[in-house]
Amino acid sequence: MGKINVGIVGISGYTGIELLRLLCTHPFFELKQATSRKLRGKKIKEVFPFADKFSELIITDIEKDGLDADIELYFLAVPHGTAMKLAQKIIQAGKKVVDLSADFRLKNKQVYEEWYKVKHVAWDLMSEAVYGLPEIYASKIKNSRLVANPGCYPTSAILALYPALKSGLIDSNEIIIDSKSGTTGAGRSPKENILFCEVYDNFFAYNIGKHRHSPEIEQECSLAAGRNIKILFSTHLLPINRGILTTVYVKTKELKIDKIRDCYLEFYGHKKWVKVLEDGVLPQVRWVRGTISCALGLVIDQKTEQLIIVSAIDNLCRGASGQALLNANLMVGFEEDTGFSVSAPLIP
Amino acid sequence: MGKINVGIVGISGYTGIELLRLLCTHPFFELKQATSRKLRGKKIKEVFPFADKFSELIITDIEKDGLDADIELYFLAVPHGTAMKLAQKIIQAGKKVVDLSADFRLKNKQVYEEWYKVKHVAWDLMSEAVYGLPEIYASKIKNSRLVANPGCYPTSAILALYPALKSGLIDSNEIIIDSKSGTTGAGRSPKENILFCEVYDNFFAYNIGKHRHSPEIEQECSLAAGRNIKILFSTHLLPINRGILTTVYVKTKELKIDKIRDCYLEFYGHKKWVKVLEDGVLPQVRWVRGTISCALGLVIDQKTEQLIIVSAIDNLCRGASGQALLNANLMVGFEEDTGFSVSAPLIP
Amino acid sequence: MGKINVGIVGISGYTGIELLRLLCTHPFFELKQATSRKLRGKKIKEVFPFADKFSELIITDIEKDGLDADIELYFLAVPHGTAMKLAQKIIQAGKKVVDLSADFRLKNKQVYEEWYKVKHVAWDLMSEAVYGLPEIYASKIKNSRLVANPGCYPTSAILALYPALKSGLIDSNEIIIDSKSGTTGAGRSPKENILFCEVYDNFFAYNIGKHRHSPEIEQECSLAAGRNIKILFSTHLLPINRGILTTVYVKTKELKIDKIRDCYLEFYGHKKWVKVLEDGVLPQVRWVRGTISCALGLVIDQKTEQLIIVSAIDNLCRGASGQALLNANLMVGFEEDTGFSVSAPLIP
Amino acid sequence: MGKINVGIVGISGYTGIELLRLLCTHPFFELKQATSRKLRGKKIKEVFPFADKFSELIITDIEKDGLDADIELYFLAVPHGTAMKLAQKIIQAGKKVVDLSADFRLKNKQVYEEWYKVKHVAWDLMSEAVYGLPEIYASKIKNSRLVANPGCYPTSAILALYPALKSGLIDSNEIIIDSKSGTTGAGRSPKENILFCEVYDNFFAYNIGKHRHSPEIEQECSLAAGRNIKILFSTHLLPINRGILTTVYVKTKELKIDKIRDCYLEFYGHKKWVKVLEDGVLPQVRWVRGTISCALGLVIDQKTEQLIIVSAIDNLCRGASGQALLNANLMVGFEEDTGFSVSAPLIP
Repeated sequence: MGKINVGIVGISGYTGIELLRLLCTHPFFELKQATSRKLRGKKIKEVFPFADKFSELIITDIEKDGLDADIELYFLAVPHGTAMKLAQKIIQAGKKVVDLSADFRLKNKQVYEEWYKVKHVAWDLMSEAVYGLPEIYASKIKNSRLVANPGCYPTSAILALYPALKSGLIDSNEIIIDSKSGTTGAGRSPKENILFCEVYDNFFAYNIGKHRHSPEIEQECSLAAGRNIKILFSTHLLPINRGILTTVYVKTKELKIDKIRDCYLEFYGHKKWVKVLEDGVLPQVRWVRGTISCALGLVIDQKTEQLIIVSAIDNLCRGASGQALLNANLMVGFEEDTGFSVSAPLIP
Repeated sequence: MGKINVGIVGISGYTGIELLRLLCTHPFFELKQATSRKLRGKKIKEVFPFADKFSELIITDIEKDGLDADIELYFLAVPHGTAMKLAQKIIQAGKKVVDLSADFRLKNKQVYEEWYKVKHVAWDLMSEAVYGLPEIYASKIKNSRLVANPGCYPTSAILALYPALKSGLIDSNEIIIDSKSGTTGAGRSPKENILFCEVYDNFFAYNIGKHRHSPEIEQECSLAAGRNIKILFSTHLLPINRGILTTVYVKTKELKIDKIRDCYLEFYGHKKWVKVLEDGVLPQVRWVRGTISCALGLVIDQKTEQLIIVSAIDNLCRGASGQALLNANLMVGFEEDTGFSVSAPLIP
Repeated sequence: MGKINVGIVGISGYTGIELLRLLCTHPFFELKQATSRKLRGKKIKEVFPFADKFSELIITDIEKDGLDADIELYFLAVPHGTAMKLAQKIIQAGKKVVDLSADFRLKNKQVYEEWYKVKHVAWDLMSEAVYGLPEIYASKIKNSRLVANPGCYPTSAILALYPALKSGLIDSNEIIIDSKSGTTGAGRSPKENILFCEVYDNFFAYNIGKHRHSPEIEQECSLAAGRNIKILFSTHLLPINRGILTTVYVKTKELKIDKIRDCYLEFYGHKKWVKVLEDGVLPQVRWVRGTISCALGLVIDQKTEQLIIVSAIDNLCRGASGQALLNANLMVGFEEDTGFSVSAPLIP
Repeated sequence: MGKINVGIVGISGYTGIELLRLLCTHPFFELKQATSRKLRGKKIKEVFPFADKFSELIITDIEKDGLDADIELYFLAVPHGTAMKLAQKIIQAGKKVVDLSADFRLKNKQVYEEWYKVKHVAWDLMSEAVYGLPEIYASKIKNSRLVANPGCYPTSAILALYPALKSGLIDSNEIIIDSKSGTTGAGRSPKENILFCEVYDNFFAYNIGKHRHSPEIEQECSLAAGRNIKILFSTHLLPINRGILTTVYVKTKELKIDKIRDCYLEFYGHKKWVKVLEDGVLPQVRWVRGTISCALGLVIDQKTEQLIIVSAIDNLCRGASGQALLNANLMVGFEEDTGFSVSAPLIP
């Protein structure tokens, strides 16, 4: 296969750096442009001395230096609000876009604008934007030129709930999603609350019932269930770098764990990056670190008639840049997991 | 007030060390005996070079060296099963006991024996054992010679739920308790799964629906509600030393947060070590580190009609040794919080 | 003893918060003013919900709201450059100052201005400023109204080297100081390089041979040795909150460890907060966490004729705010360690 | 190229797990046998659910189940003392061995037996054992059937010092090596001192002047310098999983940093896994995490005429299993770095 040139807009944040890491070992994507307003003019090796493959590439500024004509696909690793304007420009230039921001995830304009407190100025693109969860939308992604890469929490929650909702095995009125995320999820812009000394040796809940990822989870769960679903979503900050563990609690009438597992295996069995763990095994975030895998543990609590689903992903890889690369692979006609070798995370 | 001699059986574990720390600054309790089979014969300063006050005390073995006639109260910081036998011996010798193990917490012998896989050989003592949660049982504790110090998770969960259950504000059929604990909760006996390199930079759930602290929480919640309560209890291991954060989800018909807060303030308002945080504030485990405080945050999710209660304690201090000292204070006639100064935790 | 009112200028940083913690349990100092430009108007409890004693105090701005007439002593927990101007103002108002910045530590104006890249505009005060290391300068501190609180690294290095230099036991031409500090030493102003995700699970050296604390260490070591001393000082960032471990390497002709230990015991034996550990014991930073203790381990390497001195302090307590409180105690005529109980650090 | 079958003796420790991880992505080595006394009979996926490629392999016991006739090369990831006996057996069976223990590193039998407190019962093999540092001994390794894989600390120290010693640029009488290692270096056998709660939020020095890796460093440094060298070697335990940072202090007469750098570039310039960083850049352990890279920073301190060399490696990968794989590649005739893609570590 020939090389395809790609660009990263926003190389200075954690999702940009993770894309850089993953592109270093991708056999066909060639990083031709990497942009950052504040790093413009520097070589990759000056700011990321560990990224050998693209060490001599000079960082540009997308506003000042413009798009590169030879690039076929851009990854947008910039904040919401900014992303929609860039997407418009890039699509108009005839190129493809994987947008890692929230700008094209929500299909309801009013819901987007309420939660994200910004006017959506590229709504015309929404009709062609595809929600980039490959296990569900692979065929649409293949034919798309604009993919909205899912949020990290939504990826962990939707992969946990989808088969059960789709099959009607659970009571979709009672869904509690208790998520815990590593701190890379909070980004790389300096703020007091994510300083080392604020997060280390600490743990707390935040944004209970108010997290911006709620409507995204509800949208996809509702599509799975075929009815309007409301969830209770709470989030906690883990004093680790990478990893989301989501513990989902749902009422169920199906109290045989084998039936539940069969439902999940049927749905995910042929999708190699979602692993349904054996009975009694619960996932650890380190088992998926640096990978695009999602590990799922299933437990039935007979006493309270609850199904507990525990999902683990790497928020930065599967929850952002790794998934973006899966989407990009599909969009240009590659095998979905080109560039990802067998899952072999750093342990420990 | 005169000095009172106390002893610690089991000085080598984390609850023993924490008792040592707290006794260093207690004005009236004098540590006269500290025991450990494996450390017998060593001076405190040889194994704990940081504990200045009792540095010259020589560690004994309770089996070989026996009880000290001058000691009025013993703290049992030994595993369940062992504790019940020692308690019997110490009570028979006319002394008082605060037992940090689970041996005298559960009022139903069968439940104890099923969950703890051991025969209870001192059941006659149960009639006088008091569950040592001072906010609820202070007056009974004062008149007791055997106090069963609550488990760490139960302390965090019961303090979170008690006022709401007592007042009938919540639906007691639907209680989900999602707890996350620091690793000191797993003890100090060397085991592969609590090695630094297994826990660091990792996070996972364990014992979902099967944790031994479940019956203890159900027992006290049932007493609060005046009816038999079943909970769904799940636990997670945090890569930090100290701290439990418990997130409780309960259905409620009372959707005004002020009504909920008033109920909690009425119950805890005069008890200075439980702090009901202001609206919108959620507790962090560092706010209670090294203290006997419990911090409670309250949130209503209108959409799903759920009350979320978040409680933070230090599992080693409030969840074990600090609470043991509160109980000991009450048992010998001191003010409950003798030896605890105003709460001023290490931040950071 | 009567209460004495004190003020903290700069309550929002880590040294300010640590002063707040320590003042919560001080029997005679009453915090009457706490200032911060950005927190002006807020109550202590709104920003520090864990500091019970002074929870209702309203934060002011020293520039806008001025000094409090009833305050006898101010702690300056502000950056160098700013501190000197405030010190001048406060001294002129007839009050005492403990300055936690570097502004009054260096006795050579040119050296100060070269290393700190700022003009010293209060040099007239230098004649009365005392270097606030109580083990060495207690009598001068008692009679001073302006104390320059030592830097954190210098505290750990000078306490490690002083007795050996003073007694001439070591070769003062060959001193290598390899320090490792917790991240609170880098302050609380948001910067990319101290974000959680930059520091966690990482370790590196920085500022080798160029750290601003070098001249301060050289100044005091030279005074100890009675000759001009040059050191090689290197610093590393530890992924922990608190604690400095300094490993000092010096050539020595005295190869009997007992002789070395005797020299240290003679110097520190009656000073209870510096602990010379027994032979074969090396200090751990957790042994001094949250305390004003300094723990010293001594090793002779016969093969290379080197003395290795390992010192551990808590950079935030002994290395900053705790030492400031020792100094303040001395300056107002209290016992040096008023407000500090026996050392009983959190373990773990 | 055809597949070559390899075996790992001792799969349960961290070096065994790391070999498993690396073999998952090696194109030609096929893991045919993995042994562990305590895990015998289990499938890889039961104990290491994250290692997809070899998930169905059943773990054997080398003593009970014997060697596999189809295996060409064995990695010994077992303790010293045990390794020498196994090596003998495997070599006699006509196979190759990479021994990750210390058994064949020291060329002086007496030195080995003194430091490791065990009799060497396979000394006849020493004549053919090659010290497996590929940058220095690649050609010998290629022709060897028994390679002694270097220790982790020695790898970091020798790579730091070799060019300077070889070229005579430094004073080899005065070498101080101050190393700090992540906790995987201490192994996976449960011991109190490596429990999470003992290591987390802590830091300390250990084994100063007495570490078993001292003679190994001295042996190789002496060979480089062509004279007998004594070093002062001190070690510290970092509260992280992976990574060694070694700070070396040596006297030098060459005070031009460019001359020093040229010497290192000349030596390492064509060896792609040792990176000499640009002037002013110091390595971070995260830059080499999970890789076989060694990053070197060079600083001259004019004032004290010292050269400071800072080296960073991943103790588990470059310092153990990754280096073992480099050696294995050479021993079977592959390119040295077969199976290692371009260096792209997890950041963060």
